[in-house]
This record gives sequence, structure tokens and C-alpha cells, in this order.
Amino acid sequence: MSRLLESYVQGRWFAAADAGKPLLSAIDGAEIARISSAGVDLAGAVDYARTVGGPALARLTFHERAAALKALGQALLAGKEEFYELSRLTGATRRDSGVDIDGGIGTLLSYASKARRELPNSTVYLDGEVERLSKQGSFVGRHIYTARRGVAVQINAFNFPVWGFLEKLAPAFIAGVPSIVKPAGQTAYLTELVFRRIVESGLLPAGSVQLVVGEARGLLDPLGGQDSVAFTGSADTAAALRAHPNVVGAGVRFTAEADSLNASVLGPDVRTGDPEFELYVTQLVTEMIVKAGQKCTAIRRAFVPAALVDDVLEAAAARLAQVVVGDPHADGVTMGALASLEQRAEVVKSIRGLTKSARIVFGDPESVQVVGACADSGAFMSPILLRGGEKTAPEPHELEAFGPVATVLDYDDTGELIEQVARGKGSLVASVVTKDLALAREIVLGLAPYHGRILVLDSEDARESTGHGSPLPVLVHGGPGRAGGGEELGGIRGVLHHMQRTAVQGTPKVLTAVGDQWVAGTDRVIGDVHPFRKNLGELKLGDTIVAGPRVVSRADIAHFAEFTGDTFYAHMDEAAAAANPLFGGIVAHGYLVVSLAAGLFVDPAPGPVLANFGVDNLRFLTPVRAQDSLTVTLTAKSITPRQSAAYGEVRWDAVVVNQKDEAVATYDVLTLVAKPEEL
Amino acid sequence: MSRLLESYVQGRWFAAADAGKPLLSAIDGAEIARISSAGVDLAGAVDYARTVGGPALARLTFHERAAALKALGQALLAGKEEFYELSRLTGATRRDSGVDIDGGIGTLLSYASKARRELPNSTVYLDGEVERLSKQGSFVGRHIYTARRGVAVQINAFNFPVWGFLEKLAPAFIAGVPSIVKPAGQTAYLTELVFRRIVESGLLPAGSVQLVVGEARGLLDPLGGQDSVAFTGSADTAAALRAHPNVVGAGVRFTAEADSLNASVLGPDVRTGDPEFELYVTQLVTEMIVKAGQKCTAIRRAFVPAALVDDVLEAAAARLAQVVVGDPHADGVTMGALASLEQRAEVVKSIRGLTKSARIVFGDPESVQVVGACADSGAFMSPILLRGGEKTAPEPHELEAFGPVATVLDYDDTGELIEQVARGKGSLVASVVTKDLALAREIVLGLAPYHGRILVLDSEDARESTGHGSPLPVLVHGGPGRAGGGEELGGIRGVLHHMQRTAVQGTPKVLTAVGDQWVAGTDRVIGDVHPFRKNLGELKLGDTIVAGPRVVSRADIAHFAEFTGDTFYAHMDEAAAAANPLFGGIVAHGYLVVSLAAGLFVDPAPGPVLANFGVDNLRFLTPVRAQDSLTVTLTAKSITPRQSAAYGEVRWDAVVVNQKDEAVATYDVLTLVAKPEEL
Repeated sequence: MSRLLESYVQGRWFAAADAGKPLLSAIDGAEIARISSAGVDLAGAVDYARTVGGPALARLTFHERAAALKALGQALLAGKEEFYELSRLTGATRRDSGVDIDGGIGTLLSYASKARRELPNSTVYLDGEVERLSKQGSFVGRHIYTARRGVAVQINAFNFPVWGFLEKLAPAFIAGVPSIVKPAGQTAYLTELVFRRIVESGLLPAGSVQLVVGEARGLLDPLGGQDSVAFTGSADTAAALRAHPNVVGAGVRFTAEADSLNASVLGPDVRTGDPEFELYVTQLVTEMIVKAGQKCTAIRRAFVPAALVDDVLEAAAARLAQVVVGDPHADGVTMGALASLEQRAEVVKSIRGLTKSARIVFGDPESVQVVGACADSGAFMSPILLRGGEKTAPEPHELEAFGPVATVLDYDDTGELIEQVARGKGSLVASVVTKDLALAREIVLGLAPYHGRILVLDSEDARESTGHGSPLPVLVHGGPGRAGGGEELGGIRGVLHHMQRTAVQGTPKVLTAVGDQWVAGTDRVIGDVHPFRKNLGELKLGDTIVAGPRVVSRADIAHFAEFTGDTFYAHMDEAAAAANPLFGGIVAHGYLVVSLAAGLFVDPAPGPVLANFGVDNLRFLTPVRAQDSLTVTLTAKSITPRQSAAYGEVRWDAVVVNQKDEAVATYDVLTLVAKPEEL
Repeated sequence: MSRLLESYVQGRWFAAADAGKPLLSAIDGAEIARISSAGVDLAGAVDYARTVGGPALARLTFHERAAALKALGQALLAGKEEFYELSRLTGATRRDSGVDIDGGIGTLLSYASKARRELPNSTVYLDGEVERLSKQGSFVGRHIYTARRGVAVQINAFNFPVWGFLEKLAPAFIAGVPSIVKPAGQTAYLTELVFRRIVESGLLPAGSVQLVVGEARGLLDPLGGQDSVAFTGSADTAAALRAHPNVVGAGVRFTAEADSLNASVLGPDVRTGDPEFELYVTQLVTEMIVKAGQKCTAIRRAFVPAALVDDVLEAAAARLAQVVVGDPHADGVTMGALASLEQRAEVVKSIRGLTKSARIVFGDPESVQVVGACADSGAFMSPILLRGGEKTAPEPHELEAFGPVATVLDYDDTGELIEQVARGKGSLVASVVTKDLALAREIVLGLAPYHGRILVLDSEDARESTGHGSPLPVLVHGGPGRAGGGEELGGIRGVLHHMQRTAVQGTPKVLTAVGDQWVAGTDRVIGDVHPFRKNLGELKLGDTIVAGPRVVSRADIAHFAEFTGDTFYAHMDEAAAAANPLFGGIVAHGYLVVSLAAGLFVDPAPGPVLANFGVDNLRFLTPVRAQDSLTVTLTAKSITPRQSAAYGEVRWDAVVVNQKDEAVATYDVLTLVAKPEEL
């Protein structure tokens, strides 16, 4: 008997009490492992996540979590060959495995990188600017995101045993929410192996990730308003889970990636022989054979201008004829097997449904030539290309054949095209192949409400395009309606889905205390030491220097104009400047104002402030005229030590006022400041 | 017989065929109107919204929709007295009506203002920056929001017949999504009156708003993946709607504001006699009597340090004793009636539930002294203050008595407090009264995951605070878990809930065409005319000026240091600059670089460019050394005409490079540019 897969719950590996069900190789039907969740304490796992995993993650900042994910990604990358070896048994070619394994690890590394660059080195994320809620400014508001105090339950599909769980786990981990991973049975042996290496690495805090292999009935029963379920799989299962009493009545957040009848559109501008024609056909065929079409993002509906349908079918069929199906280890094989015989039977059934209105123009669902394996014991099948029948037929827009299957449909104009694509009732992705920018705009904006992602392909981006079927960690993955209505990935957007947005109202100093960022209106602390002489350990939010005054003379303005070459009339010509509706007379250059302000606040001698690397949100609010006297106030606004450098970023709030105390310019000054020696 | 309220569907007022059910005054039980939806074509209304309202809104930009909302708000404000008159019959005092009527109209005006300031003058909203997806830069990605092609169904509660529908309608309208408004029967007469004035104004496009009064069974049946339902009301009804097949299986987006056991916390630092003690008690009593406690944001649980419970109860009871209940028109009345006798019976029932563990310390649910009306025929009741019993008792954390009812609960320390508040399983709002910033931080961050809004009150913001119970248009309103899991308002956040986020991938020029913003990598157009000589009608995205070179000499750096006073060592002292880890030698001031760049690109003579009003995202990327030669490229990035001014904003992409073509500085330059004369 083969090995029984184990769950990892409450900090221990757990083997079920029974013998489990066999999992069979997609290539030859041999038993690979057995699977069972009998006896797993699901409620205990949820409790452990909440009471051990959540608190452990809460003790880490976003940057510390990112560092752990980065180390984990590097460790998995170093040992990835054993994952590839096992992946073959799922029917995957080496290229297919790359999408799953390198794609999954790449997602960890992408999240680690995004979190370090776009999140603060703390546990609270600020959303948007401070809202002034009162006339005097004593009462202000701001939105913050904090980690939910629950568990992220992740129910994955069989087709991506590695990427599928890592793409859900990474954003939850960065958010500070523990995960319980529930892989699909069919390919759970690969998920279990990767998970085992994760546990062995010791890089993730106890309780932050758990694994349940086998059936997980009842996993939603202990969940409540702080918990979430992210499901990938069939629309039927999604609907069943969404009707769970805790989703309907207890506030469990449920998102799904489900059936998706993704479209690829050949633009009405493209002619046979154009490079875009070839790109369209190549992409269509590629999406059919990668992962043997078992991707929720694969092209199911190929929309082609009526006049070009025959040409597209002919060109695609010619390429499909060159596809070699078989054991991925065998020479020359370009398409592997479906994940299981059951899966193949499902696909054949869906093709029968499609043929109610469409007809097959390439391939035979019942027969395929197989290299290096036996066609009977492995889950092999031919790519199947169909041509749609009556335009009103519902099947192509409703039936997802989850294998190497696509249907070519014709359209007459872009208005009809958009309506036809919309009949899919919401999809994960669409692609448009066109070289016409106006058409690209019209079609993209027409399709956008129905899609989570749209790719526009042409001969300029084809070489670098990552392709119709590839979700990327920095872009959202998900789609409205039939596609499940969920949204995953998308860089930090995916992290925020695991956090609660809360509007906080109070005095500026309360918002400063809550959000780790100094808010205007909070006391400024003016000490004996210039704040530029304080290192990252010494500097505190609110530390301030007030410097000035500096009188701006007419000669200063004239000299600055001459020196820089900025002789705009508003600085030079009294009559012309007087006619300007905003100035009404000669004004100083904005760049002169900020240059003089720097001259006032800079501390010249070497010290912890290493550089001014930028300025944000500079606004010139009141014109500065000759003889105006400028004073600048600079206040430490946020302090972000880097995990792996001898310095960090300090953002300073800068306000320049004139002699009437009117703000003439406001901006943020960005500096790099050294850490204390001992840090 | 009183008047039969009418629905407004498919562009017509519609009177039901039957006589309808009577709606009674909360003050004296007199019949005000009758209500029925018999014969209303709900599927027709949905179809009309999709085929007439949606397309009409799609033809308007965000700014044009904002202008319509602003005009509508002003029109309603001008005629508001008739709304106040009718509002009294709901049991509302003048102050209560202000919350509903002025609050609702204020929400329209706030959305009009936010949309003009924070959204582009187009129909596509850009989310985040361009993501580079390839090495050479030919393949990039960006997220856009577009209006969903569906209808926003809004099912409102009886307690805010005006604000309740306007706060849902405003963000949907700005997004470009048509609304179908379904008020609660009890107070629908007031909603119908306001709606009638809206229709009469003619300010909103046909089909953009419809009204269904009376039962609306079946209203969800025609909905699909582009539609949404926003519900405010009981948790039971929310759960029933959330289990609708179209929500579970067809991708209808459902959000709810439901039961919420909002907490108000007296901080452990406050002592009897502190101003914060008074603020806490005053706020507690206010929240009990405004709208007779019929607010989903009212305080239900008052958490008080154990030692201060008796003092709080005594002080609150003393104030409650001064409350005068009765007809809002009668002199001295400070609290009106509940909305109906049925509503009062519900509240009495909930109080009985609460008294399983708590005891009443003020008021009698069965008896109250009433001024100016008859206690039997009006829905009057006394404020009821309870004191919680055993800490483990579930009732205070689960039973929402939707009237002038609150329970005082004691706590020992902040850890226990946070756990106790969390027993509410998610609320719309909490408030914390404390003068200690560290406590404010600890409690706010502890409670944030369970709340949509948290208010921190102290003696500094009390005068300007808008109060525990007031949602504001610029802050999110909603809460996780039991509170419904929804989110409304929050400025533009509320608009985006009605739009679909889509990742668009393609060449930079495709993203430029789709997003109405020039993306780096798109062709730059260098013409014979300096782009600063083009007005808003002539200027096109991509119009570019390349100017330079300008050699920066050691003397320039020294002179700029002396002239501005910015004598930072990196510009002055070769040895010290060489020791700087980032510079390794003398460098030019960043402000010198951007000043010289302006000198290169500015066109001096008067023309359509009126002013440079700011700079965004300035980053200094490569140090500039003596004898470096600078060239600047300025390209029109976005063009935003203002609806009501002779000019608009133009954002320019600026890149300064050195003689090695390395970018030394990148930023956006913001200018005001005149419209053409005829515009």
C-alpha cells in the first residue's frame, strides 16, 4: 500500500486513523498515495490558528513577515527539483510544472518584495489622507486597515497544487492572518510535499499555516465574522459553500474563483497574414495545450470576425495536428495528461453538451495517439477545437469543458461582440488581439465590467507578454458573476482583502498615536537639537525645526530667473504678470521658494541625514511676492527603518508660510537617515 | 381614505390597483397614507434601469454626474421645510429630522464635491500606478475601474426615510450605476415626497433612479452578476436575502447594514469629575434619545471601569430624568415617538430579553409620561437604562433593542474590555472616551478589526465632534460580522463599490488609450509648437518638449548653495561628500536640478499655461555631479478640464537625464491651462 498523506494541524503532523482512498497517477494509473482526513480536529485547527497563529503573526511587522516569505521562497526554490519530479505524476509537462511550481514560489517572492516597498514597517496600513471633519481642525478622521482576528480558510482546486495554495497564502500571511490550506484530493500529494518542506524550514511562525488533506466537511462550521473562505473550484461547490449558514448569517467572508468562459477576441482590423493573426492563433493553441487546458483562465471562447473564421480554424487545426500527447518524460511530448480519468470523463461530457450547437473541427474526444504511455490507463485526450453553430445557442457561453477544448465563434461588429462576450456572465480574463488603439479602447472598456483582467496583444508586446492564461501576483485575479465574484492577488490589494478597514475619528494627536504617522494639528516638538542630528533611533514623530525668516527680494527673483533660465513672464514682467488671473503681479518662482526653504532648514555638517531623495505632494498655495518673508516648519511625519540596511526613510511634513502666516507651499520631504550604530 | 403612495418605475408614476395598507402617524395613530406595490412591474424596472438608466449615465463623466447631484442637493435644500413637516409624523423631533433630511442632502453635496476633486473628468478611474511586467517595458499593466452594467437595488430601513436612500443613491449615481430605491413601508410617505421633488427637478437622467413603494418580493429574481443589492435592516432579513439563489449562485453582490451592538467605552484613565466623565455620560444619553434610539449606530453597550459603574448610572439617570417625551411640536419635548406601535412592541420584547441578566435602573418600558399627545395612540416610550449582570451573560452582546435603550457593563482591564466588546461579533461603530494617547492607541487597534468606525472623544475634540452615532459621507459606514459585513460611503471608496476593477495588460500605448492618461513608453509627440502654447482644446496626451542640454558647473553648485543658504556638506566639502555612502563626492542640489529643468522647459511669454501649482512624486535617482549635462523631457500626461472654470489641470511627466542618458530626476509637474475661448 502507498503512503498515507498527512495533515499538519495544531503544530503536528497527523495521520488519519483509516486507510484512506487511493490517489492515482494521471500517466499510468498507478497508486501514488492514499488520502484521508478521518479524525482531524477541524475546530481545533481553527482555534489554534486564532489563538496561536494570529497572535504570532501580530507580533511581526509587515516587513518582518515579508522577510520570512522571502527566505521561504528562496528555500523552496533551492529544492524545487523534487517538486518537479512529483508534479509529472499529475500529468504535467515540465513547462506545466513551471507554471505551478516556479509560479507559486515567484508569488511568495513578489509579495515579499511588494510588502517591503509599499507597506510600512509596522502592523497598521493607512488608507488615504486625513479628512478634516471640523472647522477648527480639532476633529479629524482617517481610515486604517488592521489584520482580522480570524483564520483564512483556503480551499484549492486540483490543477495547481503548488501555485494554488501559495497565491492564497502569501497575501494572508503578509496581512497577518493565519491560513488553513485544504488542497483538492487528486493532486494533494504534491501540496503535502511542498508543505512538508515549509514546515521543515522553520521559517514561518507556529500556527500561521496549517494543512488539511482529504475531505473537510464541517470546516466552515466553526467560522465567524473575522474569518474568510477563499474557494477555487466549480460553481456548484461555490454556491453550496456560499449558502452555508455561517456565510449567510454569521459574516464569514466568502470569495470564489469558479467557472469562467474566458474569451479571446481577434480584432476586426486584423487580416489573415498580419502578424496579429499568427499571434491570435498561437495563443489560442497554447492556451489549449498548457496544463492540457486545465486552467480556469484558459480560452474557452474564441471570437473571430465572420470573414476570418475559416482561416483561423485552418491555421489552428494545422498547429494542433503537431501537438504530441503522452508521458511528459517521453521525448517530444508537448501535452501531458488530464489530472485523472474522472476528470477526462467530465470533459468528454461537457464536449457532448457543446456539440448540441457546435461541431468539432479538430480532434476526437474518445481517441488520441499517446507517446510513452498507455492511452487506456492514463488520462490522456486530444485537443478539441469546435466551431460554434447558431449565434443564439447558449452552450458555448455556459458550458466549461475543463480540458484542451475551445470553441470558435464569429461576430459581425464590436457592439455585437461585446454583447456576445457578456453572455459568459463574468469571466476571469479576456484577451484582445488588435493593432488599432481606438478598437483596443472600445473593446477593453466594453468588456471591462465583466472581467477581472484583460490582455491586449499585438506585435509590439507579443515577445514580452506573459500570456492570456497567466495571473500575475501584481495584478488582480478573479472575475465578477459566474467567475465567482472574487478578487485575489493584485499586490497589496490582495493583502487588504484580509484586513478590516476602519474609519478612526478623533483629535490629530489621537490619529498620530494610532496610525504611526504624524498628523498636522498634533503638537510639534522643538528641542535643543536639530532633528537632522538625530538618528533613526533618536528621532520621534513630531520632532520639528522652525527656520527663517528669509525675505525674498525683487532682486532674488530676477537673479533666480537669470541663473536658472526660468524667465516665465510672471517673474519678469509686471504688466504681464498683473494680467495673469491667478497672480495679479510679479511672483517668486515656486522652485525658488522650496530652494530657499531648504536653505533654511538644512543642517550643513555631516550627520545621520544622508540624503534628500525626493519630494511628494508639493502644492503652491499662495503667491510669494517681493519683500515677502518666508518661514519654514519641518516636522518628522513617518519613520521607516529598513530591515536590511543601515538606514531608513524619514518623511518630513514641510510648510512654508509668509509674514501673514499664510501657507505658501506645503509638501513632504523624503530623506534617508542612518540607524543608530547598535541597531 | 388617505392618499395611495405611488411608485416611480420606467419613467412614470404608478399607482397600485388595490387600496393598499394604511400607514399610521407615530404621534397619534392617524392614517397618513396607504401603500401597495400591487402590479408594479419589477422585472420591467430592472430592465429599464439597465437599458435606459445605465446608458444615460454612461454618457456623463464623473464631473457631469457630480454637477447634477450638486444641483439636486441645492434644489432639495431650498424646499426642505415640507420634508420637515412630514417628518414629524414619523415621531421625529426637529433635531431628529435634521439628521435625516439635512444629513441626506448633505451627503449628495459631499459626493458632488468629492467627485469633482478626486475623480477625473471622464468615466474611467485609474487604480494605482502602472506595473512594469517585462524587462524591455513593452508589456505593462494597470488597474482601471469601470461602471458595472447593472442596477443598484437599495432596500432601506424605516428609521431614515431620507438619508437612508440618499446615502446609497449618491455613490451609485457618481459611479454611473442606476438605482432602484425600495423604502421601508412605515415611513415611505416621506421618501415618496422627496422622490417626487427629485423627479420634478428633472435634474437626473431618465432611468437613473426609480422608486418602488410597498412589498417588493421578487425584486431580486431578475438580478445577475452586474447587479448589486444594498440592504439596511434586520439580520434575519439580511440572511434571507443573502440566501437568494441569485446571490448564492449568480453573482449578485449583496451588502448589508444589519444589527449592531455598538459599544461606547469609558477609558480606564478617566475619573469621576474629569471632563471626559461628563462627555461620556452626555454622549450616552444623547445616543439614547436622538431618533428615540432608532439608529443602527446608537450605543447599546456602555463599557465602564468597574469602580465607576455606579457613578455613571447615577449621572446618566439624572439626565434621563430630564428628558421630555411627546409630540415634537409640543413645547419642551426632547424625545419623540418610535416609528410605530409595532416597533415599540418589538423594543419592549427585546428589553424583556435583556432583563434575563440585566436589571433596569431607569425607566419603565410599559409606562411613560407624554407631553402634547396621548400615550396610548402614539408610539411613545421612556428611555431605558440597564445595568448588566453576570459578565458571562450573552444577552447584552446579542439582543439589539432598537429604541432608547442601553446597558451599562463593567470591565476590569483593557485586555478584558477588548474581548468583551468583540463579543458583539462585529459592529458599525464604537467610541472610546479617554485622554490618554497610549490607551487610545491600544483600545482603537484592539477594537478596529471588529468595527467600521471608531470615535475617540476627549475634551479637546468634544466641541467639534460630530458624535458617536453620525455616519459621515467621507468616512466608511458599515461593519464586519453581525453588522452585515458591508461598507457604504467613505467618499470615493463608496463609488468604487459600484464599479468593477480590471487589470489591463498591454503596451504602454494601449494603456494610454484605455486610461486617458499618458503612460511612459508611449510615443512622445514633438511638434513645431511648444506645448505650453496650446490651450486645453489643442493639447493632446503625449505632446512633448525636450529641452537642454544645460551643463552644471562646480560654480553653479557653489553659487546655488550660497544663494539659497543650502550649504549641506554634500554640495560643499569634497572630502565629507566622498565619505557619504550614497554620493561619494560633491553633488548638485536636487532643487538646483529641478530649477534648471524648469529654466529649460518653460516658455516665457504669456500664453495658455497660467501657473505651475505643484509637483508630485519627485524622486532624485542619480546624483548630479559638476560638468554633468542635463536634458529635460516634459510630456502631457493627463488633461482635466474643469466644469465651471475657464481652465483646467494638466499634469506633465517630467524626466531629467544626464549626458549618459541616466534619469537623474523624475516627477509630475502640475499646471493650470486655459480652455479655448469658445469652450
